Amino acid sequence: MSTFDVLTIGNAIVDIIARCEDRFLDDNEIIKSAMNLIDAERAELLYSRMGPALEASGGSAGNTAAGVASLGGRAAYFGKVASDQLGEIFTHDIRAQGVHFQTRPLGSQPPTARSMIFVTPDGERSMNTYLGACVELGPEDVEPDVVAEARVTYFEGYLWDPPRAKDAIRDAARIAHAHGREVAMTLSDSFCVHRYRAEFLELMRSGTVDIVFANRAEVLALYETEDFEAALSALAKDCRLAAVTLSEDGSIILRGTDRVRIAAHDVARVVDTTGAGDLYAAGFLFGYTAGLPLERCGALGSLAAGIVIEQVGPRPMVSLKVEAERLGLL
Amino acid sequence: MSTFDVLTIGNAIVDIIARCEDRFLDDNEIIKSAMNLIDAERAELLYSRMGPALEASGGSAGNTAAGVASLGGRAAYFGKVASDQLGEIFTHDIRAQGVHFQTRPLGSQPPTARSMIFVTPDGERSMNTYLGACVELGPEDVEPDVVAEARVTYFEGYLWDPPRAKDAIRDAARIAHAHGREVAMTLSDSFCVHRYRAEFLELMRSGTVDIVFANRAEVLALYETEDFEAALSALAKDCRLAAVTLSEDGSIILRGTDRVRIAAHDVARVVDTTGAGDLYAAGFLFGYTAGLPLERCGALGSLAAGIVIEQVGPRPMVSLKVEAERLGLL
Repeated sequence: MSTFDVLTIGNAIVDIIARCEDRFLDDNEIIKSAMNLIDAERAELLYSRMGPALEASGGSAGNTAAGVASLGGRAAYFGKVASDQLGEIFTHDIRAQGVHFQTRPLGSQPPTARSMIFVTPDGERSMNTYLGACVELGPEDVEPDVVAEARVTYFEGYLWDPPRAKDAIRDAARIAHAHGREVAMTLSDSFCVHRYRAEFLELMRSGTVDIVFANRAEVLALYETEDFEAALSALAKDCRLAAVTLSEDGSIILRGTDRVRIAAHDVARVVDTTGAGDLYAAGFLFGYTAGLPLERCGALGSLAAGIVIEQVGPRPMVSLKVEAERLGLL
Repeated sequence: MSTFDVLTIGNAIVDIIARCEDRFLDDNEIIKSAMNLIDAERAELLYSRMGPALEASGGSAGNTAAGVASLGGRAAYFGKVASDQLGEIFTHDIRAQGVHFQTRPLGSQPPTARSMIFVTPDGERSMNTYLGACVELGPEDVEPDVVAEARVTYFEGYLWDPPRAKDAIRDAARIAHAHGREVAMTLSDSFCVHRYRAEFLELMRSGTVDIVFANRAEVLALYETEDFEAALSALAKDCRLAAVTLSEDGSIILRGTDRVRIAAHDVARVVDTTGAGDLYAAGFLFGYTAGLPLERCGALGSLAAGIVIEQVGPRPMVSLKVEAERLGLL
């Protein structure tokens, strides 16, 4: 028995979302479709140039936990907010989704992390993240009983950016494996892979991580190649199970020499791609921890990702469980 | 010459928006489609029961100012926020829309006002407003040069709820009229009309207010009648110009014995009615201050209202100017 299907660990972030033209990205030297790390000063500058915005709780692993819960799964989350209004918003939203979230908040400084997300007319999101309180996440925030009781512990590659979160992850992975659980990670972002390539490969090759989520650009970055086929083969050797997302081309699941191709969900209109990868992981892990076959896990990932890109904001505003049941996936 | 087309004055509020079933409203004794005033304690209770939410800058008159600016008009706004994160969000969004907003913020307590808005499956919004910092808006917040330089000064009936805003309004109206400008108000909400009926009628009959915006329920409440025809006739006598909105039946503009019927804008799907009345006023006042005929003013109001109810949140996320030009209204 387990108390939780999926525990996720990540940077706890509130998204600030506005539309812009592509030119705005160029003028402000924002790398398109990437996660751009910024400091407090640049955050202030970019905000002064940003149009009217909406706010929504985000954070890659937070979105994944919310997605698991929306599918009816039992989810938990570790992440650090400050004791401020954005922290209250983040805490409310993830708990209101039914996710266990008890990480002790910081005082008021540094403030809760925010990511200014610029959505271009093609629906692509370009993120500008000020980490704020996230830099304080550390091993003291690992709740051992939650890790022990979660079928899968999943974390973001992004956690290699703050200074001590990686120590928390190594502790959590140790606890998980000691209890016969599995550990999953997302490579997060191709620039993040460039920053921490050696460490990510070590996590996989040492068996610290069992399951890897990535997109095409991240896999290519991981193996420093343009040969996607070669990168997939290398990835299949470096972890027990991997799911590689390919935008409108769906995804490929790798297990040993097995490959399973998954189609993308039919999307009426791409509004905002924020959260697509996070929700794919949510759907996949929900299915995986329920013991469903890989085809079904992938289809649930495609569905969850497809739904979130048809709306503004990174967490689905409809029940994924209802949608999955309607399509006969549950 | 004038510097501003429209100055609006209102409660400066950040909206916290979530979907719910009708039963949730009943269970929590929330009056549907109304603005329910709540204190800090009830705000905390309702938030604990609210699902995952989105945040967006709101406030009736703030939405109207944003709508005027989105149409290409020159807008200004007076309203009180606190020096906190929600206050920064409100300030950012209204300025980013191009609205002049310089009201001095409070310290950190009471905090910036928030309205928890529950949107039912029919798109109707039921608001639960904690006034917070708004209670401190007073005559010292009137910028006399801005009032003097605005063609129309528009305020919310909601401003009769906080203690001293009404003094600010009377001062502003005096300055406006001394400079040959016009003063407009919205009756805001039928329950608000019940609270302040005598004062609202006095504002109109004394000539403090020249132009009145209302919906059907508010006009009936104002004259304590179920006879809509009689209420319209009374309203036409009590002010120089009035626009009465009728949801999907459009609106009626009253000037003396003249009546102009305006059709509603074709709406593909009602997603969230928050801001509909505010945006009608924005479109109307933009046209009115540009010297357009009443039919065109009403059509601009219908367009702006129609666009905002097709989205989540109270301020249009597309350029109203572009939409109005596309339809040949500008």
